Amino acid sequence: HRILLLPGDGIGPEVTAAARQCLEAVAAGFDLSFAFDEAPVGGAGIEACGEPLPAETLHRARTSDAVLLGAVGGPAWDAAPRRPEAGLLALRRGLGLFANLRPVKVFEGLEDLSPLKRDRVVGADLLIVRELTGGLYFGEKREGEYEAFDGCAYTREEVERIARVAFEAAGQRRGRVTSVDKANVLATSRLWRRTVEDHAQAWPEIALDHLYVDAAAMTLVTQPARFDVVLTENLFGDILSDEAAVIAGSIGLLGSASLGAGGPGVFEPVHGSAPDLAGRDIANPAGAIASAALLLRHGLGLPGPAQALDAALADTLRAGVRTLDLGGVTSCTRFAASVCERLD
Amino acid sequence: HRILLLPGDGIGPEVTAAARQCLEAVAAGFDLSFAFDEAPVGGAGIEACGEPLPAETLHRARTSDAVLLGAVGGPAWDAAPRRPEAGLLALRRGLGLFANLRPVKVFEGLEDLSPLKRDRVVGADLLIVRELTGGLYFGEKREGEYEAFDGCAYTREEVERIARVAFEAAGQRRGRVTSVDKANVLATSRLWRRTVEDHAQAWPEIALDHLYVDAAAMTLVTQPARFDVVLTENLFGDILSDEAAVIAGSIGLLGSASLGAGGPGVFEPVHGSAPDLAGRDIANPAGAIASAALLLRHGLGLPGPAQALDAALADTLRAGVRTLDLGGVTSCTRFAASVCERLD
Ligand SMILES: CC(C)[C@H](C(=O)O)[C@@H](O)C(=O)O
Ligand SMILES: CC(C)[C@H](C(=O)O)[C@@H](O)C(=O)O
Repeated sequence: HRILLLPGDGIGPEVTAAARQCLEAVAAGFDLSFAFDEAPVGGAGIEACGEPLPAETLHRARTSDAVLLGAVGGPAWDAAPRRPEAGLLALRRGLGLFANLRPVKVFEGLEDLSPLKRDRVVGADLLIVRELTGGLYFGEKREGEYEAFDGCAYTREEVERIARVAFEAAGQRRGRVTSVDKANVLATSRLWRRTVEDHAQAWPEIALDHLYVDAAAMTLVTQPARFDVVLTENLFGDILSDEAAVIAGSIGLLGSASLGAGGPGVFEPVHGSAPDLAGRDIANPAGAIASAALLLRHGLGLPGPAQALDAALADTLRAGVRTLDLGGVTSCTRFAASVCERLD
Repeated sequence: HRILLLPGDGIGPEVTAAARQCLEAVAAGFDLSFAFDEAPVGGAGIEACGEPLPAETLHRARTSDAVLLGAVGGPAWDAAPRRPEAGLLALRRGLGLFANLRPVKVFEGLEDLSPLKRDRVVGADLLIVRELTGGLYFGEKREGEYEAFDGCAYTREEVERIARVAFEAAGQRRGRVTSVDKANVLATSRLWRRTVEDHAQAWPEIALDHLYVDAAAMTLVTQPARFDVVLTENLFGDILSDEAAVIAGSIGLLGSASLGAGGPGVFEPVHGSAPDLAGRDIANPAGAIASAALLLRHGLGLPGPAQALDAALADTLRAGVRTLDLGGVTSCTRFAASVCERLD
């Protein structure tokens, strides 16, 4: 299995290295062989080649089996003509990664970290399925001095293929899909709702309901345990998945999978590049490690090793091993080593 | 002062009647004279005239000094060719209501209602300033069977006039504006950010910072007390203001003001029409009463009476008078009567 590492910027390289270490421990334990390669993206891409997604990086991503990404961005490129984030968007588009999966759950022993009261978060375990290559992100843009425009378009096919991902996932979970839109205002949301409803006909065993995005933003906080799979479009998914990360207590704990139709997927922590923490070995690698587990499961089709890594991560956290963001003192490398020890 | 009541649908008529009662008590106490008129909007408009915003309703709104609205919508019109919500949008557009103000704070004695831990909500007191007549809401729409499109446009003037409202409000509060956008992806957000920054030059005493909408959705929950005035565009404001309502413990407690350039403003609770609660005298009129106080302050320029009504509402809640949604047993009419008693 060829795994391409795209460490990126800020704490990206540190958490990527930690996750790689865990993948190597998994390989040793399960008698697998991973070949790691590395390429620049984001600000690192701009430094190396003047591009947030160098052509060579995209090429190497395409010919790998899965991509593990760290994080991109930072104040160093605030004034740059190209933004590091553009590398992320180009990678999603270039690999056709239309499905972004963000599982959110409360780790045992960390319930008290959440800003939400304990009775609200207990039992919360949800999966956000976000459409990733459509909507306002990739629509026509015009930016003048006095006016600007962003276009938001969706086709029935685009909605259908992401709906399929959500319904499939719900079938393997608690059998419930909540589709989030703004159908009382947006034409694209009405297409979205109609298409999801049509699609649901083929899934009689899945319970479907709809929420407006404003109501969803409220309910995610008041009753997070009400959700199983949340299906939504690109921008709503961006907002709601960051909001939902709060439930877990720290955005540093969560991983994500971005999947296309057959090609390699990209796996990355939900947190950003946190430039202020970079280079100090204090970042929380849990999100990158959770992403590595998603890579094993969805990227390489290795559910057994994925489960072992997830369990080792949960054990580590349950044992009270915590980085700074979780109120602990454990370093990034030491945290990864703890996870690895539990994999032996 | 001529006040037009637009009770609308569901619990709208009940909470509007309660708020009117309070306004009459204020009038008696301050020797003011209010002339109330009433007109249909939303589903009630569809029933009465086949239109969610009958022409006569808009005309009467235009010739009033302020409009107090209840709520619109309900399953009864789910299959109707025109949606009740379209009446609300047409009213905003028709009166040029470009500024939506949503104050969120925790009422004394109700801190425990919030799903957030007490240490997070203590001290939270923020004002969301949402642009209300631009963006995706009012852009070009195309809805076909297989594809749909929504356009999002903003001009510099539109951003400037809402920025002015936010900076003015911050000047009378704690002197801080947080502008929320998605400038790493959207052209309209880059125009937004540039314009807000230029505008800030004229307000050296106001501290301005920027947050991406995904980070804002997270921070509203993790550190609500960090915010003073939140300035944002139409759709982000819709999402974030519902999310922020959570801080207060119940969306039933919050009011809003929608203001234009000189003409009458519309004042309405943040909650919806809650059809399941309608006709049972159990709705919480606090949001409508808070809206009536905003009407006195921003709609009629009567800060003294506004403050008296706000204080009577806060007193009532502090005394433990609570409707069903707050875990109490007080009816809608009885709650309003309690507020009125405190105004005598
Ligand atoms: C960095 C940014 C462009 C990106 C997005 O908006 O998709 C990020 O917020 C994410 O959610 O992965
Ligand atoms: C009813 C709906 C059209 C409206 C909006 O989206 O603006 C509502 O959610 C609000 O916030 O006032």
